[in-house]
Amino acid sequence: MIKVAIAGYGNLGKGVEKAVAKNADMELVCVFTRRDPASLTVASGVPVVAMADMAAWTDKVDVVVLCGGSATDLPKQTPEVASLFNVIDSFDTHAKIPQHFAAVDAAAKQAGKLAMISVGWDPGMFSLNRVYAESILTDGSTYTFWGKGVSQGHSDAIRRIPGVKRGIQYTVPVPEAIEAVRAGKNPELTTRQKHTRECFVVAEEGADKAAIEEAIKTMPNYFDEYDTTVNFITEEAFEADHKGLPHGGFVMRSGVTGEGTNQLIEYSLTLGSNPEFTASVLVCFARAAVRLAAEGQCGAKTVFDIAPKYLSPLSDEELRAHLL
Amino acid sequence: MIKVAIAGYGNLGKGVEKAVAKNADMELVCVFTRRDPASLTVASGVPVVAMADMAAWTDKVDVVVLCGGSATDLPKQTPEVASLFNVIDSFDTHAKIPQHFAAVDAAAKQAGKLAMISVGWDPGMFSLNRVYAESILTDGSTYTFWGKGVSQGHSDAIRRIPGVKRGIQYTVPVPEAIEAVRAGKNPELTTRQKHTRECFVVAEEGADKAAIEEAIKTMPNYFDEYDTTVNFITEEAFEADHKGLPHGGFVMRSGVTGEGTNQLIEYSLTLGSNPEFTASVLVCFARAAVRLAAEGQCGAKTVFDIAPKYLSPLSDEELRAHLL
Repeated sequence: MIKVAIAGYGNLGKGVEKAVAKNADMELVCVFTRRDPASLTVASGVPVVAMADMAAWTDKVDVVVLCGGSATDLPKQTPEVASLFNVIDSFDTHAKIPQHFAAVDAAAKQAGKLAMISVGWDPGMFSLNRVYAESILTDGSTYTFWGKGVSQGHSDAIRRIPGVKRGIQYTVPVPEAIEAVRAGKNPELTTRQKHTRECFVVAEEGADKAAIEEAIKTMPNYFDEYDTTVNFITEEAFEADHKGLPHGGFVMRSGVTGEGTNQLIEYSLTLGSNPEFTASVLVCFARAAVRLAAEGQCGAKTVFDIAPKYLSPLSDEELRAHLL
Repeated sequence: MIKVAIAGYGNLGKGVEKAVAKNADMELVCVFTRRDPASLTVASGVPVVAMADMAAWTDKVDVVVLCGGSATDLPKQTPEVASLFNVIDSFDTHAKIPQHFAAVDAAAKQAGKLAMISVGWDPGMFSLNRVYAESILTDGSTYTFWGKGVSQGHSDAIRRIPGVKRGIQYTVPVPEAIEAVRAGKNPELTTRQKHTRECFVVAEEGADKAAIEEAIKTMPNYFDEYDTTVNFITEEAFEADHKGLPHGGFVMRSGVTGEGTNQLIEYSLTLGSNPEFTASVLVCFARAAVRLAAEGQCGAKTVFDIAPKYLSPLSDEELRAHLL
């Protein structure tokens, strides 16, 4: 059995707890938290341990799944925890991946631990599909579309506007853009042409709705480069229709082989729950991390470094016989 | 520069020749053939060498891409050539992969060569997507649909019927079956419910068309388990509309995480030319074969054994900075 610990018990940590339960060769050993452990009950009933007491668990845990945020938690946590355990995180600030990799790699190598970073669906499965598709179709264009799905960052931004009681934002790919890619037209697409943003807002009693709408649509970086729709709804409607965290998207590579032969590769995800799916990706790569560590490998790794056979509980012979 | 040789100059071999030209770090060195070399001119103008004289080229070639057929060529050729060169093939008789792997592995290990087998899109990219998707969504069902595309085996079968001058068969996935999978219904699908078969036939002058149609529709193994349509067309129409070898298909994994949350992973290919796409997959895995051999690895490998970074001409740093 692969012994897994979770660090951080938010949506992602709860998703990892559920995903481990769906893998017969894995067991959850404990949950590490920065909160008072006595204040936290976890669904599976495993021990809850203060992050400060982690070191006592090094013999009992094969891999720690780090479930903190990319903005402030992981840049500090991943190198620190990698000095004690094999780890895996879902660090998703694309621009800062090289520096995160370097910091984690140094810490993990010094401790002789294996540390996987930036595992999930983007970065993660979408990244893998970009590499496979671009390696196959060298002459072509790659497109990534996100949605339809909830952007937590944009939802948070809406909720900071005065007069907004509740708010959620869906990123929606533009169907005409996807169709143009599928048709082999290799379009050059602006930000506005790729995605629209749909907002659902519950306003405070007496709030100025026109002002809220204006504040959303003109918000720099978040909304000003997009066509944005703002829908004011009741709290009951919000509760009924906007509690989930669905997401998904497409990676498409449109290319040409030989003398102008069109070829199209498309990978898409339709996710009922973004955190539960990300958790499921983390858990199978956690299996790979433990196996690579057992082979004596150490340092930071990404999804690009992992041969697919390491992800599956099946043997090489079973994979060749049944899935090849 | 990675020095590539092609063995076998049919549709696939010609596709490899074109694909190598689209990879700046590769060059085609020669084409090996069983025909009289003097009788064969190749588009790129590289030397044409008799298969029997291969051994003289061991110092000039890094990897041989074997482009023969799976029925009789590759079971013999791949182990033989792997005793002299690093090789890669597209062996696609799924049921015989384990025995082919064993034969190639023994020959390659004895010679200290690396031999990749069963590389293409199915087996190949579809296999990879089955393993990734099943490792992530452990609780779910996998579906593979093929088409719309030309099945060479079924086209050959039609052409063996008396009275058939020309014939081609398209495998077509049933749209309702794909929609049921996308809707998360986890349908149990019979052979007939997954694909239909569309045939286009040019009959010989005076042939009995009803007899031809009956012979096609009732042919055991090939057509009797499917809903088949037979269209008789003129030779001009055949020439105008049915000269290409398009293909493609879908790998879909519909699964559940947590307490019944639906998740869907979909990979699809829309290929203007089946042999040119297969060739493009072969060429990037040939790069991986050469790199693994340079690391001292030997024996038989499949797509499951290859970390994606080995496929790309980009460095690890470039991949992390731009594609993760």
